[in-house]
Amino acid sequence: MTSRNVSKTVVKRLPVYLRILDNLILRDVEIVSSRGLSLESGFSAEQIRKDLAYFGAFGTRGTGYNTAYLREKLLKIIGLDQKTRVIVIGAGHLGTALTRYNAVKNLYVDIIAVFDRDRRVVGQNIGQIPVLPFERAPEIIREHGIKVALITVPEAAAQRVVDEITAHGITAILNFAPAKLHAPEGVHIQNSDLTIDLQSLIYYSTAEKERLSRLQKEAEEAKSQKMLKLD
Amino acid sequence: MTSRNVSKTVVKRLPVYLRILDNLILRDVEIVSSRGLSLESGFSAEQIRKDLAYFGAFGTRGTGYNTAYLREKLLKIIGLDQKTRVIVIGAGHLGTALTRYNAVKNLYVDIIAVFDRDRRVVGQNIGQIPVLPFERAPEIIREHGIKVALITVPEAAAQRVVDEITAHGITAILNFAPAKLHAPEGVHIQNSDLTIDLQSLIYYSTAEKERLSRLQKEAEEAKSQKMLKLD
Repeated sequence: MTSRNVSKTVVKRLPVYLRILDNLILRDVEIVSSRGLSLESGFSAEQIRKDLAYFGAFGTRGTGYNTAYLREKLLKIIGLDQKTRVIVIGAGHLGTALTRYNAVKNLYVDIIAVFDRDRRVVGQNIGQIPVLPFERAPEIIREHGIKVALITVPEAAAQRVVDEITAHGITAILNFAPAKLHAPEGVHIQNSDLTIDLQSLIYYSTAEKERLSRLQKEAEEAKSQKMLKLD
Repeated sequence: MTSRNVSKTVVKRLPVYLRILDNLILRDVEIVSSRGLSLESGFSAEQIRKDLAYFGAFGTRGTGYNTAYLREKLLKIIGLDQKTRVIVIGAGHLGTALTRYNAVKNLYVDIIAVFDRDRRVVGQNIGQIPVLPFERAPEIIREHGIKVALITVPEAAAQRVVDEITAHGITAILNFAPAKLHAPEGVHIQNSDLTIDLQSLIYYSTAEKERLSRLQKEAEEAKSQKMLKLD
């Protein structure tokens, strides 16, 4: 383990390992090799060993990882050893879906309130979770020491929301608005971009090889024209 | 460009480049260097040159890329040069949010119908898009030659939905259900997992360095105990 920050791609794989361990433990599997983790995750065994080695030596060469022990360590590494209290900003369809989904599915996250400016939804509940007026967000963030927010407001409102909530203590934001947002240093914004997911999916929907070989032909033609289009 | 398949991580970056080019073109920028693309995307200039080189030679050394030309090529590479017709399965909050969002925001995707089994929502519209009974999905898929589906049904229903729609011609699926789904060979399933996003976000919400140095201490202690827990 080094003192420099761990790369984002490593951090994104940690919850995947956690989920696999949860499933193995449910199936009473006590020891898993990096090859076993590779089969379940699709990442290479070497990658997995390297990822986990960032944080310490959790396995035994030739034997593997103790699933319960590694799970416990991963919870601490990710910061899930205590339930994280989270707020959602925006009680539209996406905010409602996220709130319902996480309230039921996620052992590690506790959504404590949803905020909205729309008087028609304020005062209602999503499952057990209250929808509060956005003006109350600063008070709730401070009172409960909330660090994490999910933003599902329209693009035009997103930056103002970020300015407001980071001023009162939010340090990590999962943003669903299709906007490039700016935050003070030390605040981490992660964009969950459905358009990117969808477009990379479309790549696979048509015959990949056929399209690429057509493009290759075009590229060669362009080359022989000495990249006229770039002149 | 090689004849083997392009790696998934490269494919995921292509829509990011496309979005940047869209923005540059809006700002009347005609030429962009790989360094310029790097500043906008956060990927290294070397990575960007390598990614684009898979598909042909689109730039001029020392000058850069013509934004309009590269955008046009990227549209063809991803398969977005023609609008892709898509269906959504599941008209709950998430399905509704995706349908509204994409119908408005996405130039490249055309959601033509949403399917559900719930008689209370069937027959309604989401924006301009009709909610149809799931029994009609095979007919619509075939009639319109649909290849791409977004699945937002509950976990328990997801595998049956995949079996049904892939049997009738769907080859690319963006899955929002928290389930590991199986599909026939040649079908690409991409999981959009909000839990993973959220958990990796939580990693950043607490003081990273403090936590890691505590873990390092623990790891050293465990080492000195010769990994007793693994015995």
